[in-house]
Amino acid sequence: MHAEFLQYAVDLARQNVADGGGPFGAIVVKEGCIIASSGNRVTPNLDPTAHAEIMAIRTACQALGDFQLNDCTLYTSCEPCPMCLGAIYWARMKGVYYACNRFDAAAAGFDDSFIYGEIPKQPAQRSIAMHYLALPGAGSPFEVWNRLENKVCY
Amino acid sequence: MHAEFLQYAVDLARQNVADGGGPFGAIVVKEGCIIASSGNRVTPNLDPTAHAEIMAIRTACQALGDFQLNDCTLYTSCEPCPMCLGAIYWARMKGVYYACNRFDAAAAGFDDSFIYGEIPKQPAQRSIAMHYLALPGAGSPFEVWNRLENKVCY
Repeated sequence: MHAEFLQYAVDLARQNVADGGGPFGAIVVKEGCIIASSGNRVTPNLDPTAHAEIMAIRTACQALGDFQLNDCTLYTSCEPCPMCLGAIYWARMKGVYYACNRFDAAAAGFDDSFIYGEIPKQPAQRSIAMHYLALPGAGSPFEVWNRLENKVCY
Repeated sequence: MHAEFLQYAVDLARQNVADGGGPFGAIVVKEGCIIASSGNRVTPNLDPTAHAEIMAIRTACQALGDFQLNDCTLYTSCEPCPMCLGAIYWARMKGVYYACNRFDAAAAGFDDSFIYGEIPKQPAQRSIAMHYLALPGAGSPFEVWNRLENKVCY
């Protein structure tokens, strides 16, 4: 069953190239049913976040009317990049199956492996420098949040 | 100048809590002008990817008609989580400034630091297990991509 769903994601990835997108595909499965699917749509949508996994997660959430996908499994043609890995955690998915890895993606010209390598570096030492700047009141959004009653946690 | 833009993002984060979102805000600045801004809209939009940074990046790309933000700087109330860090790399931004860090976010109940800690683990050992499954033809999307002429690389 896992192999069949994963094959579907790989076929979607191949078809997505013909449809003007990148060579990646992903589906979200809940209780044995595909509830969302997408190819990578970065260039046609002018959206660097439109990876197949992100698109499928967003579509699945809309379909379920929920901001989490607790009982859902992701099948993706290639190992999720750090962006998509983060999205999988925020969606609190059940598990992930993938058919190629970050090194296969790198060989095809994609930055997945490079970005993984940037993460352990000190923020200011990354190739895109990330600077901490001390501001008075920087913690005020969290203070307002902590005081808020009946908030929707996520 | 950096402090002023960052203060704007922090103020946005605080206001966003009153507007029903999470305690995070981000803006994209190009040539001294704010071209996009957003708070975290995960729960109101039913979208686990609707972090402030992702939303601001997507809006900036639409505004510029481009899938990259080469000359743009991100100002965000809190250190980007791995999902947003990935998006910043895929957008090929110039730099990032932030006012709180992943541990401040953790103290307010958010998983940023936890997700950073999951990344170095072997995929199958993560709290959301990620399984590699060998499939015949798994590399076929990349083969089709490599053969494609006039493709839009990203």
